[in-house]
Amino acid sequence: MIARTPEKFRETGIDVQLNTEVLSVNYAGKTVELRNERNIPFDILVMATGARALLPDLPGIEKPGVFTLKNLEDAIKIKTYLQEKKCRKAIIIGAGFIAMEMSEALQQAGIQTTILHRGELPANRWDPELAKLLLEELKNNGVEFIPHAETTAIEDGKDYPLCALSNQGKIEADLILLAVGVKPNVELAKEIGLTIGQSGAIAVNSAQQTSKENVYAVGDCCESYHRVSKRPVNIPLGDIANKQGRVAGRNIGGKPLTFPGVVGAQSFRLFNLEAAATGIDEKEAALANYNPVSILVWGNAIIGSLGLKKIGLKLIADKSSGKLLGAQAVGFAGAVSRINSLSVALWAEMNIDEIAYLDLAYSPFFSGAWDIIHNAAQALRRAI
Amino acid sequence: MIARTPEKFRETGIDVQLNTEVLSVNYAGKTVELRNERNIPFDILVMATGARALLPDLPGIEKPGVFTLKNLEDAIKIKTYLQEKKCRKAIIIGAGFIAMEMSEALQQAGIQTTILHRGELPANRWDPELAKLLLEELKNNGVEFIPHAETTAIEDGKDYPLCALSNQGKIEADLILLAVGVKPNVELAKEIGLTIGQSGAIAVNSAQQTSKENVYAVGDCCESYHRVSKRPVNIPLGDIANKQGRVAGRNIGGKPLTFPGVVGAQSFRLFNLEAAATGIDEKEAALANYNPVSILVWGNAIIGSLGLKKIGLKLIADKSSGKLLGAQAVGFAGAVSRINSLSVALWAEMNIDEIAYLDLAYSPFFSGAWDIIHNAAQALRRAI
Repeated sequence: MIARTPEKFRETGIDVQLNTEVLSVNYAGKTVELRNERNIPFDILVMATGARALLPDLPGIEKPGVFTLKNLEDAIKIKTYLQEKKCRKAIIIGAGFIAMEMSEALQQAGIQTTILHRGELPANRWDPELAKLLLEELKNNGVEFIPHAETTAIEDGKDYPLCALSNQGKIEADLILLAVGVKPNVELAKEIGLTIGQSGAIAVNSAQQTSKENVYAVGDCCESYHRVSKRPVNIPLGDIANKQGRVAGRNIGGKPLTFPGVVGAQSFRLFNLEAAATGIDEKEAALANYNPVSILVWGNAIIGSLGLKKIGLKLIADKSSGKLLGAQAVGFAGAVSRINSLSVALWAEMNIDEIAYLDLAYSPFFSGAWDIIHNAAQALRRAI
Repeated sequence: MIARTPEKFRETGIDVQLNTEVLSVNYAGKTVELRNERNIPFDILVMATGARALLPDLPGIEKPGVFTLKNLEDAIKIKTYLQEKKCRKAIIIGAGFIAMEMSEALQQAGIQTTILHRGELPANRWDPELAKLLLEELKNNGVEFIPHAETTAIEDGKDYPLCALSNQGKIEADLILLAVGVKPNVELAKEIGLTIGQSGAIAVNSAQQTSKENVYAVGDCCESYHRVSKRPVNIPLGDIANKQGRVAGRNIGGKPLTFPGVVGAQSFRLFNLEAAATGIDEKEAALANYNPVSILVWGNAIIGSLGLKKIGLKLIADKSSGKLLGAQAVGFAGAVSRINSLSVALWAEMNIDEIAYLDLAYSPFFSGAWDIIHNAAQALRRAI
């Protein structure tokens, strides 16, 4: 899909106001007040305020060279800075999927990159055994990973412009990227009096309607119904935002459509590795009143005689019903493919006995005759 | 999975007789007669007689250098011949997935390969628009493809040992591979009086039991229940055989298990292309009393800014219910992944509206924010 330019929108009669800001919403009067003091009337209001990068409470984060990455403008700023300052060293604070993807991008651009992370392993969502493979891949590609690092301040450096202070010592760099998560932008929503869910994002129904009539919300600023936990969640991912946008548009335009919810599918690439996950983990499962049991199996994403494409797959199921609750995979091939198949299985509320005998497209280049999905489901059944 | 050697079986007390043949079965007397005149008694008999390559009715197919490929022994014979005769040219008669895979293997081994095919395009199961991409890939990799070729005889050649005569002229080669399909080995089953299904394979129930008590059948020689067409089919693929073998073993061993059937998932690789399909096509759908409608969309398996990985996806659905009936994909990435996701969707009897909003693991390296699965399902809905 190609994003439309403001001009394209204007050609279709849609008024696009850029470089402005909605200062307030007069819900009763049905107008929004812009920064340039212009008031715009509305019949229907769509909140698509997105999310913003979390800023850790660190002295020095206002220094030039300290960045967050949430949108295209951020990316352009970082790229410009990297080029203008001829950067050689970067520090990333955090180890989620944005940190992982940026470590690859920076390293590939010839910039020596160090990750400072509070935890022991990258990618919290993945099981430690799988995260170890990600850690190895970071190291094999020259990215330094410093675990148990509580960053305390950013100061000026001696050899480089910046210095990150942490309980693991001082590290200098040209650039510091703060990648410790995002939070939904709900200030305006709160002012209007929209209901904010437990997740901190705007509560919506399956038509993307908020608690106030004629006000919709879509994307990173709102919640989604999680089909596995049966709870509203805030998952700030572009594919979900796209779907919600279309659902809201259809409902506003008079062609009703329901947003069916999410199962929590997610993926990223890290050098030669694929990481993907779906559903919920043991902790989330317990909170959702399931009785979780899990297994992690290692295998080859293809037939062994064709080479080694190591893959690890973890399945989480409900012990009582055998129902699949979640899956996590990391591998040199096929991890995303497996997680997508299992996302559909989650969507359809399949149990592991059914998954153990699913008909998948077998070919030596893409799987074994027993796929790792089958092996994992059968192993989990034996474990139960 | 590593195949066990006969010795390994013998260690566990299982008697493995190799290089012999079952000449007949005395079902009433519960014995099988081996070629070496030894009779072996049985309580339970498992028919795992497999399938054999179809031999076209061609004069000259008995000549040295003419091969079929069904099992490991065939592969070893071909490999030995290729080396001993220092082959430079090969002809493949047929254009199914074995022909495709062998054309790649031969070409990669430096052997100039020509495919003679009755039809216009390779890979009958795939839509002509998708098959054209396979044809291009054959040509781009130096494989000659001669369509509309009815081979009439194999003779001795002048410059090469063999010559294939067809309505498209004479072509000489060192080796000719007959790859025109397989048929189940059911001679012995017929002698026992087992019911043979419409497909020509042994009829079984979901416990892999045949029509005679204490006789089971598994693998290429027997039928499988097709969950989409709701009919028994004979799909000779290794993954299905593995599952059926385990189901039979479990039932014989007193731990009942049901073979849940197939959806017809299949894949192969052709040089840089992935080809995969699942479910049924329009013709099969009409035979199964559906009202088929289909759409074929082209897209990119990854985000466009990361390069071009062209992929085509065809979806077939039932016009009345919107239920997905089948899918076919060919692409430079991601075709197998999409078909596996859709195989699970078929398994769960999803309709295209549900598929259009499935939560899949989006990441630029593996899909667009709207995956081609979503785009195709939405386009098909609009077409209906």
